[in-house]
Parts: sequence; C-alpha cells; structure tokens
Amino acid sequence: VSLERPDRLIDALSTTPALSRVFSDASLLGAMLDVEAALAMAEAAHDVIPASAAETIAAAARAIDVASLDMEAFLADTRHAATPAIPLVALLVARVRDVDPAAAAFVHYGATSQDIADTALVLTLQRAHERLEPDSQRISAALARLSDEHASTVMLGRTLLQPATPITFGLKAAVWGAGVSEGWQRVSGALAQARTVQFGGASGSRSALGAQGTAVAAALADTLGLRPSPPWHTRRARLAAVGTECAILAGALAKVARDIALLMQAEVGEAAAAGGGSSAMPHKRNPSGSAVALAAAERVPGLVSGLLTGLAHEHERAVGGWQLEWAALGATVQATGAALAAVADTVERLQVFPDRMRANLDATRGVVFAERASLQLRAAAGRDAAGRIVSRALSRSEAEGITFPAALRLDDEAVRALGHALDTIDRLDEDVAAAEAVRRQLLKD
Amino acid sequence: VSLERPDRLIDALSTTPALSRVFSDASLLGAMLDVEAALAMAEAAHDVIPASAAETIAAAARAIDVASLDMEAFLADTRHAATPAIPLVALLVARVRDVDPAAAAFVHYGATSQDIADTALVLTLQRAHERLEPDSQRISAALARLSDEHASTVMLGRTLLQPATPITFGLKAAVWGAGVSEGWQRVSGALAQARTVQFGGASGSRSALGAQGTAVAAALADTLGLRPSPPWHTRRARLAAVGTECAILAGALAKVARDIALLMQAEVGEAAAAGGGSSAMPHKRNPSGSAVALAAAERVPGLVSGLLTGLAHEHERAVGGWQLEWAALGATVQATGAALAAVADTVERLQVFPDRMRANLDATRGVVFAERASLQLRAAAGRDAAGRIVSRALSRSEAEGITFPAALRLDDEAVRALGHALDTIDRLDEDVAAAEAVRRQLLKD
Amino acid sequence: VSLERPDRLIDALSTTPALSRVFSDASLLGAMLDVEAALAMAEAAHDVIPASAAETIAAAARAIDVASLDMEAFLADTRHAATPAIPLVALLVARVRDVDPAAAAFVHYGATSQDIADTALVLTLQRAHERLEPDSQRISAALARLSDEHASTVMLGRTLLQPATPITFGLKAAVWGAGVSEGWQRVSGALAQARTVQFGGASGSRSALGAQGTAVAAALADTLGLRPSPPWHTRRARLAAVGTECAILAGALAKVARDIALLMQAEVGEAAAAGGGSSAMPHKRNPSGSAVALAAAERVPGLVSGLLTGLAHEHERAVGGWQLEWAALGATVQATGAALAAVADTVERLQVFPDRMRANLDATRGVVFAERASLQLRAAAGRDAAGRIVSRALSRSEAEGITFPAALRLDDEAVRALGHALDTIDRLDEDVAAAEAVRRQLLKD
Amino acid sequence: VSLERPDRLIDALSTTPALSRVFSDASLLGAMLDVEAALAMAEAAHDVIPASAAETIAAAARAIDVASLDMEAFLADTRHAATPAIPLVALLVARVRDVDPAAAAFVHYGATSQDIADTALVLTLQRAHERLEPDSQRISAALARLSDEHASTVMLGRTLLQPATPITFGLKAAVWGAGVSEGWQRVSGALAQARTVQFGGASGSRSALGAQGTAVAAALADTLGLRPSPPWHTRRARLAAVGTECAILAGALAKVARDIALLMQAEVGEAAAAGGGSSAMPHKRNPSGSAVALAAAERVPGLVSGLLTGLAHEHERAVGGWQLEWAALGATVQATGAALAAVADTVERLQVFPDRMRANLDATRGVVFAERASLQLRAAAGRDAAGRIVSRALSRSEAEGITFPAALRLDDEAVRALGHALDTIDRLDEDVAAAEAVRRQLLKD
Repeated sequence: VSLERPDRLIDALSTTPALSRVFSDASLLGAMLDVEAALAMAEAAHDVIPASAAETIAAAARAIDVASLDMEAFLADTRHAATPAIPLVALLVARVRDVDPAAAAFVHYGATSQDIADTALVLTLQRAHERLEPDSQRISAALARLSDEHASTVMLGRTLLQPATPITFGLKAAVWGAGVSEGWQRVSGALAQARTVQFGGASGSRSALGAQGTAVAAALADTLGLRPSPPWHTRRARLAAVGTECAILAGALAKVARDIALLMQAEVGEAAAAGGGSSAMPHKRNPSGSAVALAAAERVPGLVSGLLTGLAHEHERAVGGWQLEWAALGATVQATGAALAAVADTVERLQVFPDRMRANLDATRGVVFAERASLQLRAAAGRDAAGRIVSRALSRSEAEGITFPAALRLDDEAVRALGHALDTIDRLDEDVAAAEAVRRQLLKD
Repeated sequence: VSLERPDRLIDALSTTPALSRVFSDASLLGAMLDVEAALAMAEAAHDVIPASAAETIAAAARAIDVASLDMEAFLADTRHAATPAIPLVALLVARVRDVDPAAAAFVHYGATSQDIADTALVLTLQRAHERLEPDSQRISAALARLSDEHASTVMLGRTLLQPATPITFGLKAAVWGAGVSEGWQRVSGALAQARTVQFGGASGSRSALGAQGTAVAAALADTLGLRPSPPWHTRRARLAAVGTECAILAGALAKVARDIALLMQAEVGEAAAAGGGSSAMPHKRNPSGSAVALAAAERVPGLVSGLLTGLAHEHERAVGGWQLEWAALGATVQATGAALAAVADTVERLQVFPDRMRANLDATRGVVFAERASLQLRAAAGRDAAGRIVSRALSRSEAEGITFPAALRLDDEAVRALGHALDTIDRLDEDVAAAEAVRRQLLKD
Repeated sequence: VSLERPDRLIDALSTTPALSRVFSDASLLGAMLDVEAALAMAEAAHDVIPASAAETIAAAARAIDVASLDMEAFLADTRHAATPAIPLVALLVARVRDVDPAAAAFVHYGATSQDIADTALVLTLQRAHERLEPDSQRISAALARLSDEHASTVMLGRTLLQPATPITFGLKAAVWGAGVSEGWQRVSGALAQARTVQFGGASGSRSALGAQGTAVAAALADTLGLRPSPPWHTRRARLAAVGTECAILAGALAKVARDIALLMQAEVGEAAAAGGGSSAMPHKRNPSGSAVALAAAERVPGLVSGLLTGLAHEHERAVGGWQLEWAALGATVQATGAALAAVADTVERLQVFPDRMRANLDATRGVVFAERASLQLRAAAGRDAAGRIVSRALSRSEAEGITFPAALRLDDEAVRALGHALDTIDRLDEDVAAAEAVRRQLLKD
Repeated sequence: VSLERPDRLIDALSTTPALSRVFSDASLLGAMLDVEAALAMAEAAHDVIPASAAETIAAAARAIDVASLDMEAFLADTRHAATPAIPLVALLVARVRDVDPAAAAFVHYGATSQDIADTALVLTLQRAHERLEPDSQRISAALARLSDEHASTVMLGRTLLQPATPITFGLKAAVWGAGVSEGWQRVSGALAQARTVQFGGASGSRSALGAQGTAVAAALADTLGLRPSPPWHTRRARLAAVGTECAILAGALAKVARDIALLMQAEVGEAAAAGGGSSAMPHKRNPSGSAVALAAAERVPGLVSGLLTGLAHEHERAVGGWQLEWAALGATVQATGAALAAVADTVERLQVFPDRMRANLDATRGVVFAERASLQLRAAAGRDAAGRIVSRALSRSEAEGITFPAALRLDDEAVRALGHALDTIDRLDEDVAAAEAVRRQLLKD
C-alpha cells in the first residue's frame, strides 16, 4: 500500500488505475513542488531572489519524499486553510531552513496560493492528457478496422429504435468513430489551450515583483513547459472548457456503449462484447464494458454543471471557486477516462455477426423498402396514389404473410405505375452504395 | 498507511475524515460481507440452506481481513465485471472452501450482485448518517445560542445586497438555523426511508427461493437492522431522495457560509470567523470555513443531477444504473458532510460585532426608515403626497448631509401629515419587536 | 397581444396545453392580483387599512382584464425592475386611483415584491397540481389493469439488457406502476407542503405591520387557502423539494417510456403503443409517446440542478434568487407534466403480445433456467460440480442445438445429482408464483 | 392565436424580446419552410425532382402566412408525432396540392423529419447569433472605456472577499472585459462551427437519393448559407458546444454582475448601476441588472447538463434525443442572451466612485502593504525576523490605532532591516504600474 495505491472502491468505476495515479496525492504534491521549484529558479534568473537560494529551494523541493509525509495532518491543515498551498509552503520552508535558513526567506516569493494550485492543476491535466490518448487511439483504430471490414455488411438502420432503411455496419462503425474522434480532438484542443501558467500574486497584478512580473511569469511558464498568460485567477474559461469538452466526448462514448448494449440484446444478437459474468446466472454474458462506460459517462454532465456553476469567481480571487474546480475537474477527467477505457476494451474485442444482421433485416419482410417504393410511386403516380398503394401493400403483406415487395408486385396499380422498376425495389446495392458514400465522407472528415 | 488512510488530496475539501472512512474500501467491503453473512443466516433460518453452511459462511465473512486484500486486483476484477460483487463472492467462496468445501455451495445463494451492492450501500449510508448528525447538532446549538444572545442586537436587513429595514442578528441567526435544521430533518428523513433491504434475486422476483422469498427477505432485513421491502432494483426513488435532500441541505449551508463571508467583508465587519491565513499576505484573515463550505455545497446540485439522470433503469436491472449511483451518492453525501463540518466549525466560533452593526445602520442616515414613513404618510395624506414628501426628504437628506428623519421633521407637509408621529419615526423598538415575533415563530417551527 | 408575442413551438414537447395555461401570463398575473386583493382584505380585517379601501382594491384587482394589458410594456418594466410586482402594483394603484384616490394609498401595504411573487407562485403550483393529478391517475389505473390482466403472462426478465430469468408482465407493469405512484405521491406531498403563504415585508420581519404582522399573515393565508408560515424569503427548501420530487417522478416516467420503447423494438415485439408516423417511411410505427416522455423527463434533472444551485439566497432577500426559481420551477413542473401526459397516453393504449413474450423466452433455449439448475446442483453436488455441469450443458446446448434443460437431462453427472428434479427444472410455475408474490406486495405497498 | 396561447411572464427574465422573436413559432416554422423550399430547389438542380414542382413547392412555402395557422392543432399534431415536421409537411403538401397536385408528390422528397428540424434549428441559431452580437459589443466597448478611464484609479484588490493588495479599477474592468470577450468568442466560434446543413434521409445514408445524395446535400447547404457535412443525426457535438460555450460566457457575465452587486453594497459604495426601485422601500436602488443577469446566468449550467445528458442518441436516430435539444438549446441561448443584455445595460451606465475606492483602501490602515513589507523584510532579515516584525507591527497598528506602515516605522528591528526603504513601503505607484502592465497584457490578449 503506497501513496500511489489503488483508487477507492466507491469510485472504482469512475476512474482508471493510470488516471488515479495522475490525480494521486503523490502526483499533485509533486506538481505543486515542481511549481515552487520552478518559481524560485525563474525569480533567480531575473534577480528577484538570490541564485543560491533558488537552487537550495529547488533541491529541497525535489528531495521531498511525498510518501513519507503525514498526510492526515497535511489534509487537516489543507481543510483549515482551504488550500493545500499553506501546508505545502510550510513544509518546503521547513526543509529549506534545515539546509540554509537564509534561503527559506525566498520560498513562494511573491506568489499566492492559487498560483501554485492552478499551475499544479494544469500540469496534472497535461499528465492526464498523456494517459487518455492511448485509449482514444485504440478506439479509433478498432472502429476504423471494423468499419473497413464491414463496409459491405448490410444491416437494419434503426431510428427511434424501429427498423428504418438498410445501412451497413461499416457506416455505423464510422459514425461511432467520427463521434469519438471529434470528441477527442475537442478534449485534446481544450487541454492544449489550458496549458498556461498561473502567476498573478496576491491580487493578480504581480505587484510584489515590480517590473519583473511579466518576465518571471514567462520564465516560470517556460521552465514548466507551459505558455505564458496574463493571470487568470478569475477567468476560468479554459479550465471549464476542459470539462465541457470531456462531457461532449463522454456523450460520444455513451452512444457507442449504448448502441453496443442494444445490439447485444439476445433478440437482436448482432454483436457481442467480451463481457462480464453474473453472480447469479451462469449463462449470462453481460455488456459490462457498456455498463461501466455508461455509468461513467452519465456522471459527467452533472459534474460539469457543477464546474460551470462555479465560474463566477468574486473580485480578484473567489471564496471557494477554485476549490470547487479541483474536485470537479479531477472527477470529470477521471470519469471520462473510465468511459474511454471501457469503450476501448469493448470495441477492440467486439464480435460482429453479419448473418444475424441480415436475418433481422429479412425478418422485416421488406417493409424497409417502403420508403423507396413510396418515393418512386410518388414520382410516377402522384402523392395520393403512392400513399394508397403502399398502404394497401403493407396490409396485404401483413395479412398474407408475404413480403412487402412481393405484395407490391401483386398490386396492379403498383405494376402500372412502376413497371420493371418493381423488380429491383428490394435490391440492397443502392443502400450499400449510399452508406459507403457517407462512410467515406466521414472517414475523410 | 492503512486501508482507512486519509482521503485523496484532490477530494480533500469534498469530504471529512470521518466520512472518508465510512466510504472507504474497508467499510464498503465490510458492509458487503455483512450482507452475505446475514443472507446465509436468513436462508438457514428458513431452511433454504443448511445451518452449518450458514455458520461457516458467516464466520468466514467475519474473518476476512480487508486490509490484507490485493485491492489492485480486486478493483481490476470489479471493473471487468462492472460490479464488486463478483470478486467479493469469489473471495468469500475461496475462504469458505478452505474451511468446508460443501459450505461453499451456499455462498450468495439465490442472490444477485445488485442485492449485495444495494444493501451494502444502504448500510453505508446509515453509518454516514451517524457521522453527519453531530455536525448538524453543533450548528443548531451554536445558532440557537447566537440567536438568543443577539435577540436585541439591531442590524441592517439587506435585500438584493442593499440596506433594507432594520432587523436583529437574532432573527438572522434563527433564519440560518431554521434553514439548516429543516435541511437536516429532510436528509435524516430520507436516510430513514432508505433504510430498506434489497433482495430480489436474478430478476427481482426472488424466484430462486420459491415460497421462502418473502420470509428470507424479511429475515435478512431484520438481521441487518433494515426494513423489509419488495425488491427495488429499478425503483430508485428512495436513494435519489437521499441525494436531493442532501442538495437542499447543502443549499441551506451555502446560504450561511455566503452570508458570513459577506458579513466578514472589511467594509461590513459585522462578524468574524476563526479564519485561515494567506500564503502571501500576513494581514489576512480569510473566511476559509465559508470557502470550504461553498466549494463543497456548490458541487452537490451537479452531483445530484447525475444521480437523477440515471433513474431510468432499464427492464429488470439496468446497464450501468446502480454503478452510477454508488459514485454519485458517495460523493454527494461526502460533499454535504464537508459543508456541514465547515459550517459547524465556523458558527461555533463566530464572533459578532454589535457595535459595527449599529454603525452600519447609522451610516445609512436613516433612509432605512423611509418605508415606515412612506406607509404612515400614505395612510395620512394619500399615495401621491407620500411619494412627494419622501422623495423630497431623501433629496434634502442627501443634499444637506442630514438624516432622512431629520429632513422629514423639517418638511412642513410631513409635519402637517404626521405631527408627533414624526418623533418616533426612527425608533428601533418596533423593528426589534417585529423581528422578535418572527424569531420566536421560527424557533418553535 | 400580437404574434410577435410569445409562442412556444420550441417548448411544445416540454409542456401540455393545460399546464401552459396554468403558467400563462393571464394565470400568473391573476394569481398576483388575487394576492394583492387578499392582502388588502386581511389588513382591513385587522384594522391595518380601512375596510372601504380594501374593498375598492379587491374590486379593482378582480376587474382587471389581463387580456387587455400591453404585455410588451409590462414585460419591459418587469425586466427593468427584476420583478413583475413593480409594474403590477403600478397597474393596480392606477386602477384603484381611478375609483377612489384615497384607497390607492393602501395597495400593497407593508408588503414586498417577493411576498407577491412567491405567494402567486405557490397558488400557481397548486393549480398545476390539479392539472397533473388526472394524468397520474390515468397511469395508475392503466398499469393496475395491465398488471392484473397479465398476472400470469410469462416473459423474459432482462437485466443489463440480457435475458435473465422468467418473470410475468404483470410484475413488470406493477413495478412501473409502483415507481410512478411513489413518484406522484412525492410530488403531491411536496406540493402540499409548499402550500404556505409568503408574507414578510421589506426584510422578512413584517415590521411595517407592528403587532399585527402575524395575524395579517394568518388571515392572508386563510383567504388564499394556504397555510400560515414564518416568512421564507431565503428558506427555499419547500419550493426546491417540488422540483426535486418532480425529477424523481420524471425518472420513474422515463423508465416506463424507455422500457416500452425497448419492448417495441421489432426484434422484441412484445408491446406496441399507438404510435406516431414517420415523415419518410410509410411502414413505421414510432414510439412517439416514449420519445416525448424521454425528451421531457431528461430535461428535468438539469432544470432541478439549476434550482438547487440558486438555493443560497443572500442575506434577507437575494440578488436574483427567486427570479431564477420562477423560470426553473415553471419549466420543471411543465416538463414533468409533459412526460406524465405522454406516458398516460402510451400506457392507456398499450398493446401487449403474450405470444411474442413466450416466443422470446423459448428462443433462449432454456438457458434462463441455468440459475435454478445451478442452485439445485450446488446444493446437491457442491459448487465445483455445479459449475462444471452447467458449463458443460450450456456448451452442449449450443453445440447440438438442443435446449439447456435437454442437455442437462443428457448429462450423467446432472442426472446423478438431481434425479427427477431435472424433470421440472424448466417449469414456469415457480417463476409465475414468485413473480406473483412480489407483484402482490407491490400492489399493497 | 388567442390569449390562451403561449405567453411568457414566467420566462420573462430568461430571454430578451429580440431572442423571443428568434425562437417564436413564426420564426421556427419559417425556418422549417425555408428548408423544405431549399430542398426542393436543390433536388431540382440535380434532377431528382422536376424543376416546375420545385418552384411550386418553394412558392407555396413562401406564401404560407404562419400567423393564420391554427397553432393549437399544429402543436397537438406535433406532440402526437413527436416532431413538428409531420404537421409541417402535411400543411405544405396541402398548399402545394391546391396549386398543382402533381407537385405535391415532391414535397420533403427523400428527407426525414430530423433533417428539417435540425437544419431549421441551425438557421435559427444563426439568427440568434445576430441578436446576441450587439450586446456583446456594447459590453466590450463599455468595459474598454471604463478600463481606460480608470487606468490609474486605485482600489482595493479583494480576495476571498477580504482586502488583499491595491489594484486599479482599470485592471478590474479589463479582467471583466477579457472574460466576456473570451466567452463571446467561444460562443461565436461554436455558432460558426454549427453552421452546417443536416441532410441524411431516413437512416442517415441519403439512400433515397442514390448517387445524388452528396450533391443535393451540398446544394441545399449552399442555398441556405450553410456548410455541407456528412449527416450528423447522432453526432451532436457541434450543437452541444453551442450550449457549453454559452455556459462559459454566462459564467463570465455572472462574474461581472456579482462583482457589481458587491461593489454597490452601501458599505462598499464603489459603484452604482442605474437600478430598479423597490415596491416597499422608497430609498432603495437595487442592482436589478445584476439580479436579472445572475438569475439568467445561473440557469444555464443546469440547462446545459440536460443538453449533455441527451448526447447519447441511439442507433441511427434517437428516441427523444433531438427533441430534448430543441428546448434545451432554445432556453440556453435565450438565458445567455438575457444575461448579456442585462450586463450590457448595467456596464454602459455604470457609475464608478474613485473617492470611495480610495477611502476604502485607506480604511484598511495600510495593512494592504503587509505583503510588500513582508517580502522586503524576508529578503533583508530572513523569514523568521520578517514574520516577527510584521506580526508586531500589525498588533501595534491595531492597539494604537495607527497605520501599519507607521507602526513599522516605529519598529527598531524593521528600521534596521529596511532603512529608507520604509519611507516608500506604502507608495501606490508600484501597485498602479503592476496593475497597468497586466491590464495592457489583457487588452492585447
């Protein structure tokens, strides 16, 4: 059991082991110490503090073994102060003082708690970015493969959960892929935009640093691999956007997860995921990947509304604003990552059953061609006649247990109107071609 | 560092140490094992399984040292199965088998994963109830004391953040207290209502238990100190209500926290909380209790919307439904508890400054009596005259730097209309008496 | 009133005609005028204002023809003042002055804008209650009838959207009914609790009324058919609870709507709602009732989180607090009502297809009896043997295209373990009896 | 159209007159008819339907006088079908048939309801864009002016609602402006991205149009001034992003509104908005613009969470998905616009009181220089000495009623450490210069 120990069971389905580590105490404290070290070096570079003090501070920050801290006390101090920066600075001062009492004067020099907390959060989000990306790529690769393999696999299109017209599974997989890919690009873009340093000092004007404020902020950014920025103590759009884009990605993931659970229904049977078992029923193959993805993804909109609610930070720094964000963003990114991982696991090993897709299509007895028939009949015989003929053929099909196309071919008015066009009214080539055209557009998009 | 180790820094302001323990792995796994043990005993009591097997199972469940488990593997299995019940049952079966292979047959007999997860969550919520209550009582006691002490402490009423008419701080504290008390009674009632066993088996009909289903469910409830109930695999109102009532309580807590932060503004200065320091500014006394309370309370509505979103569980048990609830309810209760604790700490040590309250009232130069003057003038001289006179006196007060009552007394039309009533137009007795009448109503309510 | 004025296609699926009328301008303004009239009468009854003035005011309030107002100007004034009470009082004063200038002095005497807005909202919610109730009763009646009719209609239980064990449609309908009924009782209870007058005057202490405050408030409540209460300008729990209970009801409605859409899938085909057509496909029978119900119900959690977010009203009356609630509660109640009406229409005319239910059950080739077999085998032969036998029979069933019970009966080890018990391993009587026991418990609950 | 028809006092503070018109029935139906007309023309251009039929259809669509429709019936049909496209197509077919029965065959040819609903929503959002922009520009202009005028107006920086270090009002106004401007650019960008046509036909593959699908979609987009796109029936990211960016803008607006309400507190008195009156208190000047802005802005996160929740559209078109979006997006955009307008009105006429700002700063008795003193003392005498000296001076300042800088100058250890640097410890030049540097960075950003 280490500081990097597993996440909590209560939250187990809302994170991944990798993301749990990114948002662990060790990781967050490490990021805050990195910021304090980088700040000291940046200030020394601009003669705000002595170079030797900066080196001592940076060395002390690096030397702290987070695993050895009394975290219970640290958290109590954090709660008392409403910020972890207070106990962190106290800790760092104590460690620096042990080495060089004079250097202790220059710890956290001219900074405010929120400078450290915000910049550490940004660094942490960048680490999360690296953990999220492989799962996103696994999904894209798996869905691209499935889409290509099934470019000609005909299946029922379903709208409002009812049979619509035929499509291909290749198109469906491409739609899934386009949604996840678009969502990921949004998250990725938001994370890139959020890659900015926070350094504003007490009231956001860097007044403690006199003329060196802008330069120190730039140097600090540079050291940490971030972009410089005017202070953003109360302008939280970039952080909020990380959350909102996660929610949009989570929506795309939930769509895939829900569609797969629907396709896996015994009565549909068009796909199967390598699923979980049941504690009660030996025969069951649960869509557990979908369950995990849906449980995680459906958390995200509410988490994000909490994040958005907190946007109105009072005056120069808020009463509780960024404290809300730490928890909300941490939970949002982790839940999104949990959905991403669960969908990746699911689609990578998704089995697809073209025969069953075809059988379900056939089981509609050709009613899925009613739109095509209706359009052709409208063009040939007018709207009223088309309505009359299609309706009659649908009834006959039901009454006589024949297919709708067969019923049409037995219908004199239909024959008069469409002639030989009736022969191909139920050919699937056009459906496949149309689906393929859209699929290719999606893959290029 | 034990399994009961401190919560995570990222969530530190969203829970309390006590609640973190309630929702710890040890606590949750313990609750799940308690349910499995109680189930075995209840089934033995109704001859569904052999008594000796039940005793072996219960003993094995009690003997499991949660701290010694490989939680990383346990969580991986949980993620794979979308439920902790699968690895838990596997664990318990293994331990029972070590003692008596035959007894292993009767572990988790006729139950489904969600029976265990739901009942364990209910047990956990009851433990949370015990942890929340003392903080609620601390708030009620502190506010009742403040309200009594300040029953005659006059202060500005403020509406839309502007001076309104005089009230007492006793009334304000009573309003705070009534809000928190009402919120707590709601949470408490919802937790009491949620105190029901979940036992439905595979599809919610307890079919595996034949005629014994109802009796076993009742015995299980009894053993665990819960109420019996028809299965509620997909009827989640009682759980959801725990969340929504927490949100209502959190709103009442946020009101207290925000009001205190507003009263603590340097320019207002009517109250002070034992506050946190600043990492940058030695002079500061931050309303850190309010900051923690607001950060926690403002998370709750979003968490609850996630919980409510998940209510539509499909068919007999949902794809992801209860999994969402575990995380959402855990986070909701903990965040509410964090706000409760922060407000309790704040109001118990709140300093109130009656002199400053009086000074702020006086600084309005008596405009706070304009409503009373207006009403008396309307009764005496009609609406138009009242409007004219009050407006004139307000202008004169501003122009000449005198109080509004003084300006009224210099106004001939006012004097003609009100005569000696003008002498008492700025007496505070009536305001205190009115506030006291409402205060007493609130305390009784 | 011109066409440029409000209109609501955009919100058409989020309300019903009846509820739209309840929240119409005419209704709201009428309610506000009712409050002003009742206030005058209550004040006259306690000698706060002259009886003749009160009668004039009440008569003038009743005489206002809301349809003839210039609503564009009224709304502009409302926006300017952040409350409709300002233009409303101006309007009423003007009308009273036309009749008796002296009486105009006593319009809105000692009240504050929020007293009128809150009490009018409460009155409006009571009217909404009356509109919602019949739809709730339609659902209960229809589901009770369906449940009774299908007490013995066997169907697949489905968990995680996979076949579980057999239940009855009677049980499923009873579960739906219990959820909606529980939700409606919650909403109904919350609306009853919210039936309180708001009367606090400028700062919530009724100071303008001196010793008569409590009595006037009680008389006002009595006239309007509401309960008296201490002022609740900033204690919004009862209003918020109307919203949260609506959300819980909406969740229960969404469950019914989603389950029906799932049952209506062509591949499942176990139910059919009198559905909407398609603009493209003549053959389609869309679950449009489910679509409307889901669209409305899924709006509610977010609306409610907005409501909950606004709970922390500052000081004696908030900056924007109740204004947020008007819109949020209006939208919440209307969306809940839209879902209620759509589900009522759907279940009243729901067709159920027992043959198809049976066919889907049979199509599982008896794997749904695997839980029962497993439990009996565990009891007879131990956990390991049971697992081995069931697994072997499942494989054989799949490989040989026979049913799982048939495969079991061909399995020597199974025969040795269970003997004649194997004969009845696939009898549905027990499933029906178990479902019936739970169904009866639910109907009583 | 009668008074019983829609109406909106309940929503009055959640929209503006201009936006209410954009989302009016006339506007939405007009947009839908525009789409049907453009579709006919696009199909004629690619020989899918006869040119003469297209002209008849387009002319009939243009000729429909929306004001003359029986909207009650239209809405009933919309509810029945779960889409307004069904009654709309019926209406258009009837009108075309009156002119040329043959042309009626080609109305809505190859399209699905959601093609029309989605594209009409996109067109409507573009119109909303035009209505929102002027208010955004008013805010930017007003805040830029205020920022420039007050570049040297010193005021208290306030963090956690406590006095921090001095800033300028110019900086504060620039921070407000940067937030709103950033939010507006996000909304504007999202609206531009959403400017795409929806045209996918029954199942999103445009199968009814054969090889002409892509070309017709492109022509349709071109006619309507939109970008072409693969169908996005279930990929809703672009629509959702309109909502989420609105929420981020609303947060920036809420910050301005709340800050202004805080500055307007009588005890602070640093700003005044041309406010609304009170129905009870003649003296009051309420921050009604802030109240309206906050009430509107705080609705948005919840509305957006509803929108995000609905993202997981099932299969090729969802059960209720886009229906949820219409209402949610309509409400989101209107509420954001209400906040935008209220903030624009407020900041355009905001009065700023530099004398009061200075007085509030002075009333802190120089403690706001404690950070600067502390930093200089740390550099000169070490961390421990600095802490000791500042603490002593703060105490002395309080005890003797002198300023903190004065107390420092009386402190021997401080004099030894800082010498003449103490003379300028309370000069504001550096604070103004620092604020100005950040202000200029923000204006450029």
